[in-house]
Amino acid sequence: MASQQKNVGILAMEIYFPPTCVQQEALEAHDGVSKGKYTIGLGQDCLAFCTEVEDVISMSLTAVTSLLEKYGIDPKQIGRLEVGSETVIDKSKSIKTFLMQIFEETGNTDIEGVDSTNACYGGTAALLNCVNWVESSSWDGRYGLVVCTDSAVYAEGPARPTGGAAAIAMLIGPDAPIAFESKIRGSHMSHVYDFYKPNLASEYPVVDGKLSQTCYLMAVDSCYNRLCNKYEKFEGKQFSVDDADYFVFHSPYNKLVQKSFARLLFNDFLRNASSINEAAKEKLAPFSTLTGDESYQSRDLEKATQQVAKALYDAKVQPTTLVPKQVGNMYTASLYAAFASLIHKKHSSLVGQRIVMFSYGSGLTATMFSFRVRECQHPFSLSNIAAVMNVDKKLKSRHEFPPEKFVETMKVMEHRYGAKDFVTSKDCSLLAPGTYYLTEVDSMYRRFYAKKASAIACENGSLTNGH
Amino acid sequence: MASQQKNVGILAMEIYFPPTCVQQEALEAHDGVSKGKYTIGLGQDCLAFCTEVEDVISMSLTAVTSLLEKYGIDPKQIGRLEVGSETVIDKSKSIKTFLMQIFEETGNTDIEGVDSTNACYGGTAALLNCVNWVESSSWDGRYGLVVCTDSAVYAEGPARPTGGAAAIAMLIGPDAPIAFESKIRGSHMSHVYDFYKPNLASEYPVVDGKLSQTCYLMAVDSCYNRLCNKYEKFEGKQFSVDDADYFVFHSPYNKLVQKSFARLLFNDFLRNASSINEAAKEKLAPFSTLTGDESYQSRDLEKATQQVAKALYDAKVQPTTLVPKQVGNMYTASLYAAFASLIHKKHSSLVGQRIVMFSYGSGLTATMFSFRVRECQHPFSLSNIAAVMNVDKKLKSRHEFPPEKFVETMKVMEHRYGAKDFVTSKDCSLLAPGTYYLTEVDSMYRRFYAKKASAIACENGSLTNGH
Repeated sequence: MASQQKNVGILAMEIYFPPTCVQQEALEAHDGVSKGKYTIGLGQDCLAFCTEVEDVISMSLTAVTSLLEKYGIDPKQIGRLEVGSETVIDKSKSIKTFLMQIFEETGNTDIEGVDSTNACYGGTAALLNCVNWVESSSWDGRYGLVVCTDSAVYAEGPARPTGGAAAIAMLIGPDAPIAFESKIRGSHMSHVYDFYKPNLASEYPVVDGKLSQTCYLMAVDSCYNRLCNKYEKFEGKQFSVDDADYFVFHSPYNKLVQKSFARLLFNDFLRNASSINEAAKEKLAPFSTLTGDESYQSRDLEKATQQVAKALYDAKVQPTTLVPKQVGNMYTASLYAAFASLIHKKHSSLVGQRIVMFSYGSGLTATMFSFRVRECQHPFSLSNIAAVMNVDKKLKSRHEFPPEKFVETMKVMEHRYGAKDFVTSKDCSLLAPGTYYLTEVDSMYRRFYAKKASAIACENGSLTNGH
Repeated sequence: MASQQKNVGILAMEIYFPPTCVQQEALEAHDGVSKGKYTIGLGQDCLAFCTEVEDVISMSLTAVTSLLEKYGIDPKQIGRLEVGSETVIDKSKSIKTFLMQIFEETGNTDIEGVDSTNACYGGTAALLNCVNWVESSSWDGRYGLVVCTDSAVYAEGPARPTGGAAAIAMLIGPDAPIAFESKIRGSHMSHVYDFYKPNLASEYPVVDGKLSQTCYLMAVDSCYNRLCNKYEKFEGKQFSVDDADYFVFHSPYNKLVQKSFARLLFNDFLRNASSINEAAKEKLAPFSTLTGDESYQSRDLEKATQQVAKALYDAKVQPTTLVPKQVGNMYTASLYAAFASLIHKKHSSLVGQRIVMFSYGSGLTATMFSFRVRECQHPFSLSNIAAVMNVDKKLKSRHEFPPEKFVETMKVMEHRYGAKDFVTSKDCSLLAPGTYYLTEVDSMYRRFYAKKASAIACENGSLTNGH
């Protein structure tokens, strides 16, 4: 019997989102909806989107090369690479194989892992797989690399403002600053049609918004109760929201995150946990006899729990919301973009703290799990991770498109989805140096990318196609 | 530090393939090609295919329920379930979530895992992930379940006879009769466009047959050399084909398996390994100076290595070829169907033997890995696994379609792919009792299945849709 590695988790992170975005307030005016429908109703500020020179492959190429470069990781040190995505460009060839271009250049083709698929949960599946690999007898001492990359786009209508786009790369290994507490975990998986993509020729999903919200909240309940049970089994004491310092949620839109955290407190109330004081008990008492189904439909309960949760939400959740509110739903990257927001805001005070993560993918698959933050040396210190991700600068250097130009871009992308035999504008003027971009899809659907080398030169460093 | 589980691997297997098939010889005549083009040129005997009542979801529902039933496994004992497939019915909702219907009935929704995607390699990715989970600190003592399910169909033309369809379910845990030798493993991953599915509205792939064959053989070479290096590092002696009792290959068509095994011997020759006797050395000497590229193109080398390999092929590979030759390419299930053939033929003499497996997925991802067979008690004995799979009976009770009816079925399936709002014939007369079948796809693309309860009653046991 071999002995397992300790404190396996995330050693380093990089985040990339397109520099092109549209303000939700401007979208409200453009769409002719009531003021506040997107900004307060959904709780969203801004939405990032890919123009015709970016896609999930270019974004992940950018995130991975940037991570390797900024943390000084030799591509030969990577022994596993896996991708979570629900943005299908090819139904057979994985995004991981596109990323192999980075590693083949150095002669490293001995890298396990493929793509994991189930809606927004694929990145979490990839992360859990990669951590298991490091703890397994198959581990060969090298780093793992997990990539979440998605472009969330919706047909014109009420779901469109819940779009977004991003790629996140995470380096995995032992003795990590962000270590898994592997025994504190609860999953809930079920067969539902809340959000799915059966129309293969279209990039847009079929969405039952109301059902999806209920499924999400049911999954929150189920996972939280399982996590509490496991904690109680291993620690011998009750778990409540008091036992974690931060809660990070998959964030399709911020309002759902607010509701979900409030739901945890309702669960604590039902379990008679210590986080609920007398005043809160009094407020929630009228709802103690609701059935599960009734509780998901009750607006009064929603209001009451959000009131009860307000102060705790501000302390334990609000610091996780910056990027999801500013970039939109990033599907598989969404949870980790929320986590990146927390590191950005609180990196200097996180050591020793417990962070509970909730990952949800429609269809459905959901897991709630826990990180414990540890002091680590450069380059794997939290302050360096925050510095590398540089969220503030990335957000501030974006280019706001007027809604008309956003709608126009969506139209172009509709035609480009699944198409062949075209060249893009190759206009990378809005992209930061080091960003990959799509130059061509040939008559055999083969995709070609180039890397923006500097603020001036545009078409250097093109990646050759597969052999 | 926790201690790792020992001898993690495959505890039990079940295989399902459609009972509807067409003989390759009849196809040759129908297609007007030269006699032997499919049967000798490709080395294939027969091809199984889904009719309009079957698909990758129904096949996997059948394989999983049958495995649980025949080995007496309570669905609550499953803690992880993952699927490998490249047959996309939905781009977001995983096949795994469809299979959750089986487990939700018993109240078990705490089951990790999603779908793994990269061409024919997804099943191997799922298997390696599941084994890692059992060896990780996250393992909760329950079984893992890995499902490979695919329907391989091609547009009319030279690739069509390389179709096939099957689902395989494998139960994963410690102390297994088929145990991983986790240190003896070599992978090769690269960015190529040999076979891919960029035309999202079509079920058919884009294939560069010649490139794909070269990529496959290159991956064989690379993985084999890495496996040999690791073996030599850990065991302190050279590895050759003499050191394994059987070699099981992913089998798009049998001819490629013949070439691949011969290629291992060419590698042994280049490495001056013990498996190559003086006569063989003499035969291969003229080819010792070929470059890699030349060696893939040389028909003379191909001939010479196949002559050298003939006796060893008959002993170490031929027993693995039955199901792939009779059913066709099953994509992710293909390698494990070859392995099932070996268990079927040799279950009484496998204990103690080493079996080397080669998994290939276009795009490309490839791994060569090793099993060691162990004596285990019922129901996890090899003889019981062979009895449950009952390959002979399944092959013999098939219904041969004339080529015209096969072509007609392919036309129907083309129209049905990605379609909504239809009911099937619900004709399950050709299916065995216990087989799931598709009854309807509604106007929201939601799919409904039923289970054939007995040889008479047809529409019992229908699975309700997600809530």
